[in-house]
Amino acid sequence: MPYTYEYPRPALTVDCVIFGLEESSKLKVLLIQRAHDPFMGQWALPGGFVDMEEGLEEAALRELEEETGVRDVFIEQLYTFGDTERDPRGRVVSVAYFALVNLEKHPVNADSDAKRVEWFQIDQLPRLAFDHEKILQVAIARLRAKVRYQPIGFELLPEQFTLSQLQKLYETILGVEELNKRNFRTRILKMGVLREMGKQEGVAHRPAMLYSFDKEKYEQLARDKYEDLIRRGVDFEI
Amino acid sequence: MPYTYEYPRPALTVDCVIFGLEESSKLKVLLIQRAHDPFMGQWALPGGFVDMEEGLEEAALRELEEETGVRDVFIEQLYTFGDTERDPRGRVVSVAYFALVNLEKHPVNADSDAKRVEWFQIDQLPRLAFDHEKILQVAIARLRAKVRYQPIGFELLPEQFTLSQLQKLYETILGVEELNKRNFRTRILKMGVLREMGKQEGVAHRPAMLYSFDKEKYEQLARDKYEDLIRRGVDFEI
Repeated sequence: MPYTYEYPRPALTVDCVIFGLEESSKLKVLLIQRAHDPFMGQWALPGGFVDMEEGLEEAALRELEEETGVRDVFIEQLYTFGDTERDPRGRVVSVAYFALVNLEKHPVNADSDAKRVEWFQIDQLPRLAFDHEKILQVAIARLRAKVRYQPIGFELLPEQFTLSQLQKLYETILGVEELNKRNFRTRILKMGVLREMGKQEGVAHRPAMLYSFDKEKYEQLARDKYEDLIRRGVDFEI
Repeated sequence: MPYTYEYPRPALTVDCVIFGLEESSKLKVLLIQRAHDPFMGQWALPGGFVDMEEGLEEAALRELEEETGVRDVFIEQLYTFGDTERDPRGRVVSVAYFALVNLEKHPVNADSDAKRVEWFQIDQLPRLAFDHEKILQVAIARLRAKVRYQPIGFELLPEQFTLSQLQKLYETILGVEELNKRNFRTRILKMGVLREMGKQEGVAHRPAMLYSFDKEKYEQLARDKYEDLIRRGVDFEI
């Protein structure tokens, strides 16, 4: 049944994949337990319908806060999922967003719209509602691909940190035991967003160099909105 | 005005940014002249409303063929544009797709739904309808960013080609006069999708090495759908 501008129209939702990290823990994702049908009682990504007068990102942030209490996160658009069979209620297209946060800085709110809200380790997930398992897998892949060409971790590390701490963070995100130390150092320094801050003090044996993020350069690289896509397009250096 | 699953709902469209290349020409984009209001007579990206029973990519390919006659192209999702003011008819959210094709292999059809269909050089664009200038800029940036980590050109070069030919193609896509030859060769060979086919024959002085694309590896890298995002996520090598 085709339409022009008139009804019927697909319904439009947003979904949020919020990844959380805390020290010496595995990568986690924020899930809600659904309070209503369809999939009542099942775990799902936070999300909901887009209001008529709000932007897509705005809708995603509103739903995230309503359902989980989590706010002030920098989200990026991930992908739009529009398979005709993805929602038992009918045709629903969903624009997915994702973010990576320090979960200790983003407490969840038990008084939210959802029945329960919890952080789950991504290797210990419950069964998810709708096609949310697929959305989550795409987000995990995107996050891991992203660290290949963009630095991450600004919010997730102390002000000054060693390359070993940063490497540990990458290993957690990538879900790998141990990255090659030399390759990691070469590649991460080449991104040009770390500033040397001097050697560790009070360390008896072989103190390590401390680094901090060059906030300005880091933020320029870390944003992935279309304005920045344009900027990134220009500085190609093959 | 919030909604749950009921009406009103935003309208949903798809738009296609089809980039075209032909030998020794600049990068072009396929535009249609609008036959109806709003923006009647103005140039725009091919696109239209998503039917209730078709997927998003399916809708984009259908609209592309209906409006331009262009078919059999491999499109990728670009970004979903949902600013509340982007369409004078009301709230319309558009999922944009993009592709890069050899335009000689994709003739346009004058009998299409659109008033006129033409390839425009991207540095000689007419004024575009809606927010299509923005969508196009995002697509240009994405295309240029993409060649940083993925090989391109399979459809656009002869079976066997020299690195100089491939470099020329990259220069055209990137809109630059001349890339650094040594850097280009190092990086492109590192992508691991080129196969040496022996030296040029019938060339008196310093024959160049001929290459062909390793189709299987190339296609694996060139696709950017979510299944492949997942695969790419796994082979991180920092």
